[in-house]
Amino acid sequence: MSTDLASAINHQVRLAARPVGLPKDGDWRFTDEPVALPAEGGVLVRATHLSLDPAMRGWMNEGKSYIAPVGIGEVMRAGGIGVVAASKNPAFAVGDKVGATLGVQEYCLIPADQIRRSGLAKIDARLGSDTQWLNALGMPGMTGYFGLMDVGQPKAGETVVVSGAAGAVGQTVGQLARIKGCRAVGIAGGADKCRFVVEELGFDACIDYKSGSVREGLKQHCPDGVDIYFDNVGGEILDAVLARINRKARIVICGAISQYNNTTPVEGPKNYLSLLVNRARMEGMVVFDYADRYPQAIAELAGYLKDGRMKSREDVVEGLANFPSALLRLFGGQNFGKLVLAV
Amino acid sequence: MSTDLASAINHQVRLAARPVGLPKDGDWRFTDEPVALPAEGGVLVRATHLSLDPAMRGWMNEGKSYIAPVGIGEVMRAGGIGVVAASKNPAFAVGDKVGATLGVQEYCLIPADQIRRSGLAKIDARLGSDTQWLNALGMPGMTGYFGLMDVGQPKAGETVVVSGAAGAVGQTVGQLARIKGCRAVGIAGGADKCRFVVEELGFDACIDYKSGSVREGLKQHCPDGVDIYFDNVGGEILDAVLARINRKARIVICGAISQYNNTTPVEGPKNYLSLLVNRARMEGMVVFDYADRYPQAIAELAGYLKDGRMKSREDVVEGLANFPSALLRLFGGQNFGKLVLAV
Repeated sequence: MSTDLASAINHQVRLAARPVGLPKDGDWRFTDEPVALPAEGGVLVRATHLSLDPAMRGWMNEGKSYIAPVGIGEVMRAGGIGVVAASKNPAFAVGDKVGATLGVQEYCLIPADQIRRSGLAKIDARLGSDTQWLNALGMPGMTGYFGLMDVGQPKAGETVVVSGAAGAVGQTVGQLARIKGCRAVGIAGGADKCRFVVEELGFDACIDYKSGSVREGLKQHCPDGVDIYFDNVGGEILDAVLARINRKARIVICGAISQYNNTTPVEGPKNYLSLLVNRARMEGMVVFDYADRYPQAIAELAGYLKDGRMKSREDVVEGLANFPSALLRLFGGQNFGKLVLAV
Repeated sequence: MSTDLASAINHQVRLAARPVGLPKDGDWRFTDEPVALPAEGGVLVRATHLSLDPAMRGWMNEGKSYIAPVGIGEVMRAGGIGVVAASKNPAFAVGDKVGATLGVQEYCLIPADQIRRSGLAKIDARLGSDTQWLNALGMPGMTGYFGLMDVGQPKAGETVVVSGAAGAVGQTVGQLARIKGCRAVGIAGGADKCRFVVEELGFDACIDYKSGSVREGLKQHCPDGVDIYFDNVGGEILDAVLARINRKARIVICGAISQYNNTTPVEGPKNYLSLLVNRARMEGMVVFDYADRYPQAIAELAGYLKDGRMKSREDVVEGLANFPSALLRLFGGQNFGKLVLAV
């Protein structure tokens, strides 16, 4: 196998320029290089599926954030699932199925001193498929799980609203809220997604922000107000929900996809004083803080996938060359379910 | 005494119209009416000092808030300190010093069924002066105490920033933060106020928002970032602090005086995504929720006033007729310390 590898080519997608607004073709550069073999303690992973996430847009910007920006000329950062292609590390054997930060490339060489940082870990294929390991059992699932459970702290009978409801994080949040005895109301774009959210995922209701007023939808579908809002989008939808929150409501700030490609300043929530009137809180979360507890969350969610109480939907795009256009689908809300790139 | 009272006149200030922007003279109406004597279970209080607070502006607006709006034609709501002038309630004797929601008027008749709602309670003159009972020992002190201690949850060594630092709530917050072992940094308008905040109240530093950049001031005076921000003002200052918060910071939303007289929509905090990056929270508070615990907070704060660890400053304006102009001083930031109207 190493002889094949020695002559193999690694196709890569690198960040060529920092985008202004939506990423353009010219912001990317496609490169080829020979596959490098691992030195002592290192592991070479062949990617099978990469995760495409809204957070990627933030990683392309310069400036302080919860994680360093991707440097110009560097391979674009991406989490993924793959198979160990070569190993000089006793903890990983050729053929092991693994998850890690692999980057948008076919092969990822992880040196010994980067293994921890990359999050390299074997995954148990019995718990879920490759794409589920990037969805409910991966970062989106962990984000939804800890954001809802730890920051949101749902109590049975409460109303949980989640935006991006058909997306990766939203799927987990709404289904988990139902499992925990809450009323789950989604917000999604388009009748198809809303139908999917209600009929397939079992949410109590879903508001189509593209076809009507979110304010009216909240009034109709949250007759007892909103106790938890899990926000993936920011902007006007955040303001509409702020106007409907209950006393002691919790707003989980997970993302703000409506603002990521702004070329004007971020729109702050005009209704934030609703937090005062309602003694409510708005709290940010970053999934990496919960890394120690991923295993128990994965076990719980895998149980729900197994017994059918939770479903997952992934939207799979084929081929590294389609990475730039696939990413744009995410920001246009054209993906249907967790967006995955099959390498 | 009742014979005198029977012929006495009660001078009042009533809300004549809902203000647009800053309250104008025409938004008020001065009325006189005979003093009414209490029926069974009721109490008549003669006001000595009334509290003038930023929150008053919100009470003048129509619409849902944490408290019902003052109706057009009604006596303007105000908390105050006074003396029992007549009583048909065994719990209150003529001459007792009391605090309650008295309204902007000389005499307040509190019928039996309104005593609880008005918050009528005897006050202990040994613990503080009348004006202190409207400041550190009154609503502003309670707001600062519970906002900082319960919502902010300060730990020794942390940096606490408070806006409106020379004002009623700000005084308590910063001095209490110091007592709890924190670094206290104020934000106030003008060199005199800033000097008072540092030299008299003992804050570590105070940033003059009128004479320089709050951003630069925060950089200089909060070298280790901001762990707690107690916000009384909103607007650009809130955004400047959001840009400097630490991981797991707590922002206490107590008020937003910069926005209360807006005729345009409230300016939302553009930097709210700093909550996400920093896993921080922003939480609203309303002091009335802590009514059960006022006595213990008053005892603690009175102790600090007594032993000199806490000072209080009040800005006293004389005469009911000056109520409208005094209130405008509050919104112009012209008051120096807790604004009180001596009746």
